[in-house]
Amino acid sequence: MHKKLVLNVVSRILLVVCLSMVLPLGWAFVEDYSSTETRAFLVAMLGGFVFTFLVRKFFPVSMDEMEELNAKDGLAIVGLSWIFISVFGAVPFFLSGAVPSYTDAFFETASGFTTTGATVITRIEALPRGILFWRSLTHWLGGMGIIVLSVALLPALGRGAYQLYRAEAPGPTAERVRPKMKETAKTLWMVYFILSFAETVLLMAGGMPLFDAMCHTFGTMATGGFSTKNASIAAYGPYIQWVIIGFMLMAGANFQLHYQALRGQVRSYTRSEEFRTYLLLILTCVPVFTAILYLTSGSLGEEVLRTAAFQVVSILTTTGYTTADFNLWPAFLKVVLVILMFIGGCAGSTGGGMKVIRVWVALKSGYRSVRQALLPNAVMHVKIDAKPVSDSYVLMATTYFLIYVSLFGLGTVFMTLSESTDLVTAFAASVACLSNIGPGLGEVGAVENYAWISIPGKWLLSFLMLAGRLELYSILVLLLPSTWRK
Amino acid sequence: MHKKLVLNVVSRILLVVCLSMVLPLGWAFVEDYSSTETRAFLVAMLGGFVFTFLVRKFFPVSMDEMEELNAKDGLAIVGLSWIFISVFGAVPFFLSGAVPSYTDAFFETASGFTTTGATVITRIEALPRGILFWRSLTHWLGGMGIIVLSVALLPALGRGAYQLYRAEAPGPTAERVRPKMKETAKTLWMVYFILSFAETVLLMAGGMPLFDAMCHTFGTMATGGFSTKNASIAAYGPYIQWVIIGFMLMAGANFQLHYQALRGQVRSYTRSEEFRTYLLLILTCVPVFTAILYLTSGSLGEEVLRTAAFQVVSILTTTGYTTADFNLWPAFLKVVLVILMFIGGCAGSTGGGMKVIRVWVALKSGYRSVRQALLPNAVMHVKIDAKPVSDSYVLMATTYFLIYVSLFGLGTVFMTLSESTDLVTAFAASVACLSNIGPGLGEVGAVENYAWISIPGKWLLSFLMLAGRLELYSILVLLLPSTWRK
Repeated sequence: MHKKLVLNVVSRILLVVCLSMVLPLGWAFVEDYSSTETRAFLVAMLGGFVFTFLVRKFFPVSMDEMEELNAKDGLAIVGLSWIFISVFGAVPFFLSGAVPSYTDAFFETASGFTTTGATVITRIEALPRGILFWRSLTHWLGGMGIIVLSVALLPALGRGAYQLYRAEAPGPTAERVRPKMKETAKTLWMVYFILSFAETVLLMAGGMPLFDAMCHTFGTMATGGFSTKNASIAAYGPYIQWVIIGFMLMAGANFQLHYQALRGQVRSYTRSEEFRTYLLLILTCVPVFTAILYLTSGSLGEEVLRTAAFQVVSILTTTGYTTADFNLWPAFLKVVLVILMFIGGCAGSTGGGMKVIRVWVALKSGYRSVRQALLPNAVMHVKIDAKPVSDSYVLMATTYFLIYVSLFGLGTVFMTLSESTDLVTAFAASVACLSNIGPGLGEVGAVENYAWISIPGKWLLSFLMLAGRLELYSILVLLLPSTWRK
Repeated sequence: MHKKLVLNVVSRILLVVCLSMVLPLGWAFVEDYSSTETRAFLVAMLGGFVFTFLVRKFFPVSMDEMEELNAKDGLAIVGLSWIFISVFGAVPFFLSGAVPSYTDAFFETASGFTTTGATVITRIEALPRGILFWRSLTHWLGGMGIIVLSVALLPALGRGAYQLYRAEAPGPTAERVRPKMKETAKTLWMVYFILSFAETVLLMAGGMPLFDAMCHTFGTMATGGFSTKNASIAAYGPYIQWVIIGFMLMAGANFQLHYQALRGQVRSYTRSEEFRTYLLLILTCVPVFTAILYLTSGSLGEEVLRTAAFQVVSILTTTGYTTADFNLWPAFLKVVLVILMFIGGCAGSTGGGMKVIRVWVALKSGYRSVRQALLPNAVMHVKIDAKPVSDSYVLMATTYFLIYVSLFGLGTVFMTLSESTDLVTAFAASVACLSNIGPGLGEVGAVENYAWISIPGKWLLSFLMLAGRLELYSILVLLLPSTWRK
């Protein structure tokens, strides 16, 4: 890689995050201008500025050099940026004393940026506003993508922006937009902003104060899951819960579709095979969950339906908000939730997981291979949106599935090594972090948290969160020695 | 499919199984010629002969028609044969009263033929010899493959044999041997017979009576797992256990390699990348297991090493014999065992699972995709035995991985629906049956059995056993309507 170039760009991205700290600083300042957290934010921001300044001074990069940015640099920049911003974003948590150790602070920040929502904080409501706001803001920044934001904001990236954009969102939708990268990045953030604004207004209409409405909007639109309440969304009434269900549903869909819908092409939704599959999955699971919860609890009505819908949508979109302790649900529902955890949201959404389209292509490949066994010499294509998909793309999808499941397996193995815990907790923590959900099962279940995990365990889970959020490659390449060579 | 043709061939394969019942009949006759089980075998054999006779009479097939056998027929014949022989093989268990219901009898027989070794019998030592012998013989017949045996024995199959052979053993090794199908089938059975004879002699040298030595040989060489003892191999001393470890190791390797070794080419083993991977996996796991068992039990020595080696080899080769209750081992070892369950033996072995070569190719595909991300335009090949493998083969391997994991997931979901059990038992039962191992974890752990599973659960697990043994396709195509069309 071009090390100087990579460091330079990483520092620019860090600057964007550094500047964004002005918002939590504002809340902290208003609450108590002389508080520890006010100082924590000021120190962190100062540190960020100094770092950026030093990098720019000692490792300057010209516009010509910027054009040399290649695929390897792009992946490295994205992977390293996300590690750097997590390292940096953890500073206020640590300095303010909100979390007991730097490991915890890093875990909480990585969990925030990757929109996982796994927390090490046991008494959330005891935290000052500035810290809570920063915690939720990391979701919002990470949801649509800090790189996408940087591409939209920073002029100097030039054509190199494509390599970055591609590395942060390697899904099938990114390819199409190469010629107008910057415009696309701006458009996506605009849609994201509009939907976020709408949700905040609707939550406030339900009686939620501005502060909580913003934090929960960040948690919803980014499919994050951090709440300002210990009880998560169970602390709120039916109206708030339905609003959040609706916005989680939107956050888990491709934002290109929302953009087209905002431009009047509402049909885009139904024309997308991925969106139809996503919706069908929810519309199948919700009645089944409702029926089984009715059979086990005996009560039927809006509440059961709402609980079922909330949990199915929250888990599939990888948000991780909870209104019920699904750890106590029948094993059948838990297994289905685990499967939904693997699937995740749509490509081009803020959701995590393997993504609906990849799983769908992989399953179609499986179905084709069965039909192919009957007619070995026939030419058969996997089709998406009624168009044949190339076999190299199908191989990408099935290989992604394989790496994903392997990382999950490795994560489970390491969890059983670092923690003396049961199998269910180990595999649930692994998939809940890799798929950026947050709550899992067992000791990391809906009403539990990650505070008890050992230090090595927290670093491992942070690695899984980052790998999952960045769709594996920009993190995995950092493990290859050849990435670090010139 | 050509229905008449398929039915005709299925009946011929059934005849081979029917004739093999003469062996357990012999044991039953010697033990007590007037016993219920003697009569059960006579009735079953008579039924089998009548069925075959009726099919041949009313659905005769000429040699010319036999040549019409295509890939679809081949798959259907294999899938249906295995179902038919399980249906038929269950008759003596049922008629003799050895198992309480026909579902149990079918489960036990399918578990036998597929070399799973999952049992519904709680008091094994109370069973008469004829029944015990038949139970173990189903392993031996199913291990190398009843179709392979039929190809070797039946002259009338002609060129159609290729389609059958291909469908029962669709691994990469089957392709090469097309021109000399019958010879290969005979060779494989010869090697199988020689190794089985050697094991029986060695077991008898350790003081095991002929009957038990034969039954345990069948269980070992077929990577089955049925024992004549309630305590499985824990009932025997170190010598017997080491002998069984050695033969499990051989049974989990490609039999083509054994054939070459018998012809003096011992180097074949080290030249095979799959065999090296298989051996490396064992040589990595055994010391790790020994170390951890030492740390948790405090004792060190031959016994700990033997226990570790036995369980690692038994699970990886999918035999399922036990000398210790690994359900009580630390979670780390249990997770590793579960991963070994998925991997399974080598292609061309009697072992189940996904097969070492497929997992290896899939992992190499994953590694390639990470390197490819760095150099998007470079041409990179997955290599096996130092030769590049085509992308269509890589896609086959990753797709197989996908279908396998999906079936495992579906199996787990259905298990939680049909049984009121915990997650670990549900997923362990699913993988232990799909990979043809037998014992899993939790309530289907090493010292438990499958007797308590509900009737729908037993049929589901039987389906998984058959799908796993036949490498998915010949069972899955039976679910497609187009298979049943002309």
